[in-house]
Amino acid sequence: MKRTIDLNSDLGESFGAWRMGDDEAMLELVSSANIACGFHAGDASVMLSSCTTAARNGVAVGAHVSYRDLAGFGRRAMDVPSSELYADVLYQLAALDGIARVAGTRVAYVKPHGALYNRIVSDEEQADAVARAVADFDLALPLLGLAGSSIARRARDRGLSFVHEAFVDRGYLADGSLVPRGWPGDLLTDVDAIAARAVGLVIDGRVATADGTVIDVAVDSLCVHGDTPGAVGMARAVRSALTAAGIRIEAFAP
Amino acid sequence: MKRTIDLNSDLGESFGAWRMGDDEAMLELVSSANIACGFHAGDASVMLSSCTTAARNGVAVGAHVSYRDLAGFGRRAMDVPSSELYADVLYQLAALDGIARVAGTRVAYVKPHGALYNRIVSDEEQADAVARAVADFDLALPLLGLAGSSIARRARDRGLSFVHEAFVDRGYLADGSLVPRGWPGDLLTDVDAIAARAVGLVIDGRVATADGTVIDVAVDSLCVHGDTPGAVGMARAVRSALTAAGIRIEAFAP
Amino acid sequence: MKRTIDLNSDLGESFGAWRMGDDEAMLELVSSANIACGFHAGDASVMLSSCTTAARNGVAVGAHVSYRDLAGFGRRAMDVPSSELYADVLYQLAALDGIARVAGTRVAYVKPHGALYNRIVSDEEQADAVARAVADFDLALPLLGLAGSSIARRARDRGLSFVHEAFVDRGYLADGSLVPRGWPGDLLTDVDAIAARAVGLVIDGRVATADGTVIDVAVDSLCVHGDTPGAVGMARAVRSALTAAGIRIEAFAP
Amino acid sequence: MKRTIDLNSDLGESFGAWRMGDDEAMLELVSSANIACGFHAGDASVMLSSCTTAARNGVAVGAHVSYRDLAGFGRRAMDVPSSELYADVLYQLAALDGIARVAGTRVAYVKPHGALYNRIVSDEEQADAVARAVADFDLALPLLGLAGSSIARRARDRGLSFVHEAFVDRGYLADGSLVPRGWPGDLLTDVDAIAARAVGLVIDGRVATADGTVIDVAVDSLCVHGDTPGAVGMARAVRSALTAAGIRIEAFAP
Repeated sequence: MKRTIDLNSDLGESFGAWRMGDDEAMLELVSSANIACGFHAGDASVMLSSCTTAARNGVAVGAHVSYRDLAGFGRRAMDVPSSELYADVLYQLAALDGIARVAGTRVAYVKPHGALYNRIVSDEEQADAVARAVADFDLALPLLGLAGSSIARRARDRGLSFVHEAFVDRGYLADGSLVPRGWPGDLLTDVDAIAARAVGLVIDGRVATADGTVIDVAVDSLCVHGDTPGAVGMARAVRSALTAAGIRIEAFAP
Repeated sequence: MKRTIDLNSDLGESFGAWRMGDDEAMLELVSSANIACGFHAGDASVMLSSCTTAARNGVAVGAHVSYRDLAGFGRRAMDVPSSELYADVLYQLAALDGIARVAGTRVAYVKPHGALYNRIVSDEEQADAVARAVADFDLALPLLGLAGSSIARRARDRGLSFVHEAFVDRGYLADGSLVPRGWPGDLLTDVDAIAARAVGLVIDGRVATADGTVIDVAVDSLCVHGDTPGAVGMARAVRSALTAAGIRIEAFAP
Repeated sequence: MKRTIDLNSDLGESFGAWRMGDDEAMLELVSSANIACGFHAGDASVMLSSCTTAARNGVAVGAHVSYRDLAGFGRRAMDVPSSELYADVLYQLAALDGIARVAGTRVAYVKPHGALYNRIVSDEEQADAVARAVADFDLALPLLGLAGSSIARRARDRGLSFVHEAFVDRGYLADGSLVPRGWPGDLLTDVDAIAARAVGLVIDGRVATADGTVIDVAVDSLCVHGDTPGAVGMARAVRSALTAAGIRIEAFAP
Repeated sequence: MKRTIDLNSDLGESFGAWRMGDDEAMLELVSSANIACGFHAGDASVMLSSCTTAARNGVAVGAHVSYRDLAGFGRRAMDVPSSELYADVLYQLAALDGIARVAGTRVAYVKPHGALYNRIVSDEEQADAVARAVADFDLALPLLGLAGSSIARRARDRGLSFVHEAFVDRGYLADGSLVPRGWPGDLLTDVDAIAARAVGLVIDGRVATADGTVIDVAVDSLCVHGDTPGAVGMARAVRSALTAAGIRIEAFAP
C-alpha cells in the first residue's frame, strides 16, 4: 500500500503587475510546483521569485510548459507545427532551468499546461514534439500527466519516465478523462469531499466519476489547484487528510 | 603584434514569418554569432536553427540579450528596474544556452543588444544588473562590449572577463564612443575603406574618428553587421583583407 | 459579361524592424488592400503608412483581421471562445478604421486572415462571432471571403453583404475549397498560367482544379499574394492580362 | 466657488486571465473612467466589458493611452521615436473608441498612463506626439493631465482643451509635481485625511506638499486610484466627503 504521495500545484502564474494565486502559502503545502515559464503566465522576475521560494521550502520545481498564448493563458488549443512546438518547449524548459539553478535548485520534471495538456492526451504529433524536446534537453526529467494518454506513450517511447497525476477537484468521466471545463460536474467545491477523495485516490487508487461509477486511476501525484480563491484552504485540507491517514507528502522527483 | 582576431555579428534576428539577414552566409564568415534570445528578435525555432548552423560551422554562440521590446527591436532605451533587468537577462541567457546545448554547442559569451548596449556604457545600475546576471549564471562567460564603459568595470567587479569590441562600419567620436545612429557619420558604407579600417584596428589598434583625429581603440573582436543589405559583402571584404594581412579569424571564446 | 473586377492583396504585413512584401509597388497594382491590424502582422506605424499610401493611390482599405498570434503570423488555428473573438475583431477593425480616417480614407470592407479565414469556412460559431463584430461596428461594411462558406451565410444572416473572392495562384479542390498549404498543388507559380487563369476566372467564372476538372467559382474579387518574392511581377502580369482582355480593375467597395 | 467636480480613475486594467481592481464597484463611484487600451493593460474583451458598464452607469470613457509595455504595465519610461508614439496613441484611441461606440458610448477624453504620463510633463517631443495624435483623431477630445506640463502647453498649441487633474492620495512637491513612486511621502493612505484633502482641493484649490507648505493646484478633476486593495473604500470616502460639502460629482466631458 502506498505510504507517500506527491502534491503538485500550478504556481508562478503572476505576470508583470498582475498577481495570481498565493504562492507563498501554497509552497508550504505542496511537494512539487509546476512553474509557468513565460508563455502562458510568469515572467522572468516571477519565475526567479517562485524558484527561490520553492528552493527554500524544499519543493521540487517543474517546468509548466505551454502554447505561446499570454492573452489566452494557454487555454486555447492551437495548431502549432511540431517543429515549432518542439523548440517552444525547449525554450521554456531551458529558461526555467537556468533560473532555477541560480535560485539554488533545478527543473526536476515537466508538466504541460492547459490546452497543451489536454491536446496531447490524444494528439500524437504534438505529444511526440513535447516528449522529444524534454528527452533532448535531459533524458532524466520525468513528464507528469494523465495515464493512458498519447503523451504517456510518447514519453516512454522517447526513454522518459512518465508520472501519473490525478486531480482532487476535477470531475472524471468513465474513461478516466476529465470532465471538460464548463460542463456540469467539471469542478468539485466541497472541501471535505475533496479531502476524502484525495485519501481514496492514494489508498485505493480509485475515484467516483461524474455519473457515479467508480474507476481505477493511476496516481503518483495529486494535483491541487493554486489559482482559485479557496485554493489554499483546499490544499491545506487535502494535506491534513492525507497526513491523518498516515500518508507522507513527498516529491516524486529526486 | 596581434595575429588573430574575432569577427562577431548580430544574427538570429528573424522572428516568426519575418526574415532578417542572411545567417547561412554570415555564419561562414564570422567566428562569433551574437544570437537574439526572443526579447528583441528571434524565437525558439530561429534560435535553434541559428545554434545548429553555428555549431556545424564551428562558430561560437553568444547570447545577444536585450530589453523586452519586440515592437521596437530593442532599440528603445527603457527604465527597467534592475531586479527585473537582472531576471530578464538570466531568462534569455538560460533559454539560449539550453537550446544551444541541444544543438551541440553552448553559450560561450554574452553581448547586450541595441539600446541596452548603449545604456550600460554609462548607466551603472543597469550595467551591474547585467553583470550580476551573467556572473550568477556562469562566472566563466565573458561579456563583450565597449572598452571604458560602465559594463566593462562592472563585469570585472563581478569577476567576469570583459572582451573589447570595435565596429568596422560605425563612426567613432573622439572619446571612443560611437556616433549615435541618425547623426552624420554614424555609418560607413564604402566597403574598401571599411576593410582597410578593420586591418588598421587589428594591427595598429587605432581608428579615425568622424572629425578626423585618430584614437587608440582596444580591440579583441570586430563587429560586422549582419542585417544591412550589403552585410554579407562587407563581412566577406573584411575577412579577406584581414586574411591577406596575415591575421587569422578566430573566436575569442574557447 | 463581367467588365470590371477587383484585385485584392494582403499588405501592411511588416512589423517593427521587419519588412515583408513591397507595399509601395503592390499599391500601384491592386484596387483593394487587406491591411494587417496588429494581431498577426502590422503595427500602428505600418498601418498608418499603408493607409496613407493606399489613400494616395485610391486603393480601398480592408481590415485584415486575425487571431492574436504574432509569433505564428495568424496561421495557427486557435480555439478562441466566440466572445473573445468578437471583441478581438472589433478591436482590430476599430483601430484600423481610426488610423485610416486620419490618413484620409476609411475601412471599406473586412477580410479575415490566415487560420481564421480557413476556420470560418466551416466553423459556424467563430464565423458568427466575426460576422456579428463587423455588423455591430458598421452594417455597411462588406465581408470578403469564399463562396459557400459558413462566414458567407453568417454574414448574410447578420445583414452584411458578402463579396466572393477567388485566388489566382492557389490550387482548388473539386468542392471549391483551397488545396491546403503544404499539399501538392497548393500554389501555382507559372506567371503566364496564373495570368490566363485570372482572365478565365473573371470572364467565364470557372477554374481548373488540382485534379483537372473545371468548376464554377463565384468571383467578385481576385486575390493576388503580396508577400512572395515574385509577388509584384505576378500582380503586374495578372493586371496586364486582365486589362488586355478589356476588364477594368476597380474596387468592389465604394 | 466650484460646486461640481469630476472623479476619474484608472480602470479596465485586467488582462486575459488576470483581474485587477474592482471595476464594477468603482464605476458606481466615479464620473470618468480612464480605460486601458491594450498596450499596458486591458484586452479587447476587458475593454468591451468596461465600456459597457461605464455606459450603463453614465460614466464618461477616457482613453488611457500608454507605451507598448504589457510586461512593465506601462511604468517604464521608453525612448520611443515620436512618429511611432504618434501612431501608437492613434491606434489605442481608435480601438477604444470603436469598442465604446458598439457599447453605446464613445471616447470622451484622453489621459496618458504611467511612464508616458510622467514623461510628457517635461518631454516636449513626446508631448507633442501625443497631442498631435489626439488632435488628428478628434479635435474635440480634451486631454487630461497635470497643470503646467509640456503636454498642457502642447495640447493647447494643437487646439485641444486641457483639463487639470489633482491626485487625492499622491504626495506633492513644492513645484506642484508629484513625489516619485518609491520616495517617502509618495502615497497617502489615511482615508479620512485623503477625503478632507479632496474637499480642500475642490473648494480652496490648494494642497499641502510633502514638506508641509501649501500650494495652489488647478483642479478640474480628482484622480482616485482603482487598483490598490483599499481603492473602493477610499473612493467611497472621497465621494461622501465631497457630497457632504455640497459638491456634485460630474464628468467634465460632455
